[in-house]
Amino acid sequence: MARSLVVAVAQLGPIQKSEPRALAVGRMIGLLERAHARGAGFVVFPELALTTFFPRHYHADRAEADVWFEQTMPSAETAPLFARARQLGMGFHLGYAELARAPDAAGQMRTRHFNTAILVGPEGDVFLKYRKVHLPGHAEFDPRRAVQHLEKRYFEVGDLGFPVIRAPLPGLDGVNLGMMICNDRRWPEAWRVLGLQSVELVALGYNTPSLNQEAGGFEAPHLRVFHSHLSIQAGCYQNACFAAAAAKAGVEDGCELFGHSIIVNPQGEIIAQASSWGDEVITADCDLDLCRLGRSTIFAFDRHRRPEAYGRITGQTGATDPPVWRRPGGDGGSSEK
Amino acid sequence: MARSLVVAVAQLGPIQKSEPRALAVGRMIGLLERAHARGAGFVVFPELALTTFFPRHYHADRAEADVWFEQTMPSAETAPLFARARQLGMGFHLGYAELARAPDAAGQMRTRHFNTAILVGPEGDVFLKYRKVHLPGHAEFDPRRAVQHLEKRYFEVGDLGFPVIRAPLPGLDGVNLGMMICNDRRWPEAWRVLGLQSVELVALGYNTPSLNQEAGGFEAPHLRVFHSHLSIQAGCYQNACFAAAAAKAGVEDGCELFGHSIIVNPQGEIIAQASSWGDEVITADCDLDLCRLGRSTIFAFDRHRRPEAYGRITGQTGATDPPVWRRPGGDGGSSEK
Repeated sequence: MARSLVVAVAQLGPIQKSEPRALAVGRMIGLLERAHARGAGFVVFPELALTTFFPRHYHADRAEADVWFEQTMPSAETAPLFARARQLGMGFHLGYAELARAPDAAGQMRTRHFNTAILVGPEGDVFLKYRKVHLPGHAEFDPRRAVQHLEKRYFEVGDLGFPVIRAPLPGLDGVNLGMMICNDRRWPEAWRVLGLQSVELVALGYNTPSLNQEAGGFEAPHLRVFHSHLSIQAGCYQNACFAAAAAKAGVEDGCELFGHSIIVNPQGEIIAQASSWGDEVITADCDLDLCRLGRSTIFAFDRHRRPEAYGRITGQTGATDPPVWRRPGGDGGSSEK
Repeated sequence: MARSLVVAVAQLGPIQKSEPRALAVGRMIGLLERAHARGAGFVVFPELALTTFFPRHYHADRAEADVWFEQTMPSAETAPLFARARQLGMGFHLGYAELARAPDAAGQMRTRHFNTAILVGPEGDVFLKYRKVHLPGHAEFDPRRAVQHLEKRYFEVGDLGFPVIRAPLPGLDGVNLGMMICNDRRWPEAWRVLGLQSVELVALGYNTPSLNQEAGGFEAPHLRVFHSHLSIQAGCYQNACFAAAAAKAGVEDGCELFGHSIIVNPQGEIIAQASSWGDEVITADCDLDLCRLGRSTIFAFDRHRRPEAYGRITGQTGATDPPVWRRPGGDGGSSEK
């Protein structure tokens, strides 16, 4: 019997800086209902889905940015989304900025800031929380950028690893669920850590500008969507899983986000894709047993992986220079100019 | 100044079981000359380029298969290729089956078998040797397969890791060169280990059947080329490097190999592609400085990688089951049916 689940991605159009959370939540409830009408049992909302993508705005005083963070979840503003999802018997994935009182690495209670996502079950349980590990951008104001990308300023690196949990979704006793947030999707390490926990469905939200400010004009804008899709498709194929990737799209605070939300199957094929720059629901009927083919054959990790050759992946952070070839016993290769 | 190198991929059409090495070498010299006429300074030949893809043939007595292996390199049969390349001042990459007298892990001299490739410089020096790490297939005769894939029978797992070396190629004082063989390209770990050594150009040969015998009819044949390209494109993008991937193509011993050799740039774009099922040269003018963009921005590993979250990649070989969600303090999630 097929382990079938209709998965929805709820792409959000722009949320301007002045728009209150209640407005975004209202739009999300509308998308939830549209997904339900299309048979979906699970909906993925984007990264930082409740507000504008605030890391583009510089606050000299970091504490000022706390206005963009949630101190509880559900909060007063998001409670209607939780209630409606439960009423409809649907699970969902939600990204938000998390302000937590939590112990740090030394065990001391502190106020901490994370770029966070949660998976919520059809009965309202929080199955899993994930805090973004791969924070892009920079920590200080960068005068060379027309638009800032201050994720390294406002967030700490996530401290929960890349967890996977087996939990029930409508019609299914257990689905192996994992999460990523935005830039994580470009890192094959993140996919592999999920794959090594037998993930079947990766929920993934993103806010990605159409222009790479960091690239100094070298990166052709038309490659931006390609790179996003390439990374997700390779991650799904190489780990034999589905992914549901939800974007914020359109012009937000004058900055264009590229949208193109997708659902990808374990063969790496795009099986649904958003085509608007606004609020949009896409759905796909996902047979989770399709994950078995890859992981029992070409990607049967236990038979084929060779961790003894992978030491650098965990043994070093940055890239090193390779040795320079020298002719054995001779005067060697040319020296560097 | 651009660090420019015209790179060629020399795709080989089929080599039937009965064809002698001298015939293959003659074809390779012809391809080398065609690449030279197109301005190339470096040519990539496929995996196991001297013979038919012999792991499809079962020898009950493994020693019988030694006939497919090279005991020296250059050998008498390959010496003309080395000589012609040196005459033309060209570097090349060659894949072959290596029979070596070499120490094993315990330090004892043994006769060993590897699926090997070498990088040869324009003056005939062997810059680098690589022995295939990710051996696909199986070790014993599999009666369910119409065609065998006995790489795990005939080869040991490579013992040289994924080395990178900086060595001179025509017009360039130093290029950071690495290698992969066939199935390695599907493993993001292999790409990352090369990327962590600042690889700029990955030479890669393959022999890949158009039908996945292992998939029991579930994998659509049209996805085979897609998966190969997807993996190479993602590997190049995520590690900001070029790859030159050379196939054997066409019907060999009754088994179709899918060809579609490509050259890929650090943006993950295919910049040259073979379209025949036979001997064919493709070329691309590669500015190796294009590797800088990715590795100084979005893939600046030292700023963005988080090895503390990657422990599973080296800490375990196979996939584990995730924990099953239980409602805190309650009777928990549903049990498995």
